[in-house]
Amino acid sequence: MQISATELSQLLDGTVEGDPTVTVSAPSKIEEGTPGTISFLANPKYESYAYQTQASILLVSKNFQPSHPINATLIRVENVYAAITFLLEKFSQEHQPAAGVATQAAIHEDVKLGENTSIGIYSVIESGVSIGADTIVYPQVYIGKDVKIGKNVILYPGVKIYHGCEIGDHCILHANVIIGSDGFGFLPDKDGNFKKIPQIGNVILENNVEIGANTVIDRATMGSTVLKTGVKLDNLIQVAHNVEIGENTAIAAQAGIAGSTKIGKNCLIGGQAGFVGHIKVADGSKVQAQSGVAASITEPGKAVYGSPALPYGDYLKAYAVFKQLPAINRQIRALEREIAQLKGEISGNDVA
Amino acid sequence: MQISATELSQLLDGTVEGDPTVTVSAPSKIEEGTPGTISFLANPKYESYAYQTQASILLVSKNFQPSHPINATLIRVENVYAAITFLLEKFSQEHQPAAGVATQAAIHEDVKLGENTSIGIYSVIESGVSIGADTIVYPQVYIGKDVKIGKNVILYPGVKIYHGCEIGDHCILHANVIIGSDGFGFLPDKDGNFKKIPQIGNVILENNVEIGANTVIDRATMGSTVLKTGVKLDNLIQVAHNVEIGENTAIAAQAGIAGSTKIGKNCLIGGQAGFVGHIKVADGSKVQAQSGVAASITEPGKAVYGSPALPYGDYLKAYAVFKQLPAINRQIRALEREIAQLKGEISGNDVA
Amino acid sequence: MQISATELSQLLDGTVEGDPTVTVSAPSKIEEGTPGTISFLANPKYESYAYQTQASILLVSKNFQPSHPINATLIRVENVYAAITFLLEKFSQEHQPAAGVATQAAIHEDVKLGENTSIGIYSVIESGVSIGADTIVYPQVYIGKDVKIGKNVILYPGVKIYHGCEIGDHCILHANVIIGSDGFGFLPDKDGNFKKIPQIGNVILENNVEIGANTVIDRATMGSTVLKTGVKLDNLIQVAHNVEIGENTAIAAQAGIAGSTKIGKNCLIGGQAGFVGHIKVADGSKVQAQSGVAASITEPGKAVYGSPALPYGDYLKAYAVFKQLPAINRQIRALEREIAQLKGEISGNDVA
Repeated sequence: MQISATELSQLLDGTVEGDPTVTVSAPSKIEEGTPGTISFLANPKYESYAYQTQASILLVSKNFQPSHPINATLIRVENVYAAITFLLEKFSQEHQPAAGVATQAAIHEDVKLGENTSIGIYSVIESGVSIGADTIVYPQVYIGKDVKIGKNVILYPGVKIYHGCEIGDHCILHANVIIGSDGFGFLPDKDGNFKKIPQIGNVILENNVEIGANTVIDRATMGSTVLKTGVKLDNLIQVAHNVEIGENTAIAAQAGIAGSTKIGKNCLIGGQAGFVGHIKVADGSKVQAQSGVAASITEPGKAVYGSPALPYGDYLKAYAVFKQLPAINRQIRALEREIAQLKGEISGNDVA
Repeated sequence: MQISATELSQLLDGTVEGDPTVTVSAPSKIEEGTPGTISFLANPKYESYAYQTQASILLVSKNFQPSHPINATLIRVENVYAAITFLLEKFSQEHQPAAGVATQAAIHEDVKLGENTSIGIYSVIESGVSIGADTIVYPQVYIGKDVKIGKNVILYPGVKIYHGCEIGDHCILHANVIIGSDGFGFLPDKDGNFKKIPQIGNVILENNVEIGANTVIDRATMGSTVLKTGVKLDNLIQVAHNVEIGENTAIAAQAGIAGSTKIGKNCLIGGQAGFVGHIKVADGSKVQAQSGVAASITEPGKAVYGSPALPYGDYLKAYAVFKQLPAINRQIRALEREIAQLKGEISGNDVA
Repeated sequence: MQISATELSQLLDGTVEGDPTVTVSAPSKIEEGTPGTISFLANPKYESYAYQTQASILLVSKNFQPSHPINATLIRVENVYAAITFLLEKFSQEHQPAAGVATQAAIHEDVKLGENTSIGIYSVIESGVSIGADTIVYPQVYIGKDVKIGKNVILYPGVKIYHGCEIGDHCILHANVIIGSDGFGFLPDKDGNFKKIPQIGNVILENNVEIGANTVIDRATMGSTVLKTGVKLDNLIQVAHNVEIGENTAIAAQAGIAGSTKIGKNCLIGGQAGFVGHIKVADGSKVQAQSGVAASITEPGKAVYGSPALPYGDYLKAYAVFKQLPAINRQIRALEREIAQLKGEISGNDVA
């Protein structure tokens, strides 16, 4: 997409200062702006970059008064942040495939497709599936029997959804996400051989859920593994059977949640954090990266850290002393020697 | 699948009490039972739920004597656990694809397929492959040259098996499992550039092995990476080149095992645990989640915890003191002051 | 591939001692050598195995003087290591698919393919893509719009590359690697609902980069996520948006790097290590497995360990004391008692 300063100013309801015919094909950060890109000055802290940037167009506030000459063509707008967001969405959407069903997609005859859906080549959609309007299924996706998918959903290439799972509206599943694989359930017999416990529940993603690439969400043993509206998961996360994650909780990459644990809403979970099974984590909890949450968190809004996790401040304070342990150990030895010496002196006093 | 109380009682060799025409389509937990599901009372601790459950059918023991009225139709059986397992397996199998080879599967002409196999659409099976009877290959699976696959195996969508690997009987590989990718082996030259060490071994899964979604098992440099009979791996696990895992060892999600390490049989490994390379872990070891096993475990049946891992009880005791380190640090300062004071007093005594 | 001792000796410029007609189909380690394989004696420490090995052919130095009889046919060469590497590469390359474009690959009409490329069945290559000479695209790969791929690259089955990303020459991407998925960026509104920040940058892999199976590299918000020449990543690694990784840095499995962090060149990163976002890690840093790097590392060539990470030796020394904390705690209690007793004695002295 090549777009000129004039066209952009019309889209953004702005005014042009400089060459109106210059064109750009991508946005850039002001400190990294290259010719052919549009950059922006929203935070006054970055103003100095405005005088150095190589970007062809610079988006600035209506009230911005440059103190030095600027090479870029300026577009002045009322609200720079709103204009950027509008532009970023425009640039990001141009890559989505057009509506239409690929000839070489294996779609069972009873599948219900909403209006304006896009089904990519070499995707497989089994019987009983329904897919809402405006949903994009990229190539090489697998959708098992009786899966329900809402409207305006994006399934990137390689997504695999096992039978019976449900995906709400406006969800985004990145490449190779797995939804509904069997939970990890086995019963050992007396010889240590494991017998598989059939996993016959499903996974339910409510609306506006986004799931990062290669993340796995296991189906429930019975009932449902549930991600509530607005949940955002990063890449390579493990969500075990019968887990529930509350509204608008965000979880960073490589975290893992063991079976039947319930995470509250509005929680922020750091990368590589782990949760044991069968616990409850209160709303608004903040779990530091790499923490191991081994017990329920009952009080809302608290931060934890460490493995097993402690209150955030307590862990930092304990760790600050941990670093000094070799010195502390030496201090204790010194104290022991001093006490031994004092004892000798006292007994010397006694003798005296 | 809709099935009536009468049909179920015949399947389970049980007797009906209540409406024999009521139908169900899925099992449920007694505390979550909804209309149209069959629930069960196996553990007497859950008896109170029997009087509240919304499940349409309740599976109970022949000897169960309700102390209150129950809304659900009862089916009485000799052994509730055995009946549940039978039912769960029945419900879970109904989703498997039928035998048959998809027209649009790319199967080399020299591939040997056993009886009653199912090969899904857009799967690719290279030359020299053999696949045993009753095995199900879902769509979009890749099976490299000369791979051997046993009977009654399930390969879920997106599984990729590199050339020369061997999968035993009754194995289950969940979606996007990777078998036989190159081990991570490089030799740095004097300038720090890495030269790849070709990885020409393979991976052998013996019988009854189950591998969770997105787990990766690398091929050996030479020889084989081996998972013995009955090994169960959860999702997103890393198994490096030349690792061996003993019979009936179970490993939870996101654990990682570095190259050439040998894990014994009947071990239980927690989620996100890590093992350095070239160590041996004794049979029956229990490794707590997030532990880092940095040295061989020589005594069988021991539990470890921490990073680097310590004996389980030792880690918990040390961590209990770790939490108190700030207080302990203050106590040591107090001791130092007291001793200084005592010294003064003693020297005062001396002076006196 | 069956190859005789005579043929091998010609390939390796060596001389045969023993049966020149014996054939082998694979290399083996000397301690695991089986009939039909070729093993090697490079390190004198392994000499005793030479007299026991079952391998049909044994590769030895020109100067090797056996002290006992050897069953295997010997091939004597000038440089055993060089001969092994040559052989391993020969055995490993025979599995690669031949050049040619599969009929059932979905390749947009404007795609530019270099000479001698191999495009596997059920792969999808969108418009605007260019692929260099001698590159192998295995089956079931997805390459998004406007992606640039260099020459002599291998993309294993299931690799997914999002639009606009760039892959240099001689790169290897293992099965199900994801390149260019959206970075994890959201802005919470006042009610805690997240608004997605469009991710419109890309990923650039320079030359000679190898990426392990199921690893994910997110696209930049704006600009590029960059892996410089010679970077080697193991399996299941997370690389977040706008990360940069320097030349010849190697990272072990399941490590994770949060957004905008810059890793230097020639670093060695252990498995399951984590890095917070927006930090810089100096060239030549060594990060121990499972460490959590929570602040920039400014001095080159240093090793760190722990979570949060400390200088390597400091962590080990502190952890050595950590193990003794229960004993130390008891010692402090003993000191307190002794001091109390001394006080009593001193005050007794005073009284006296």
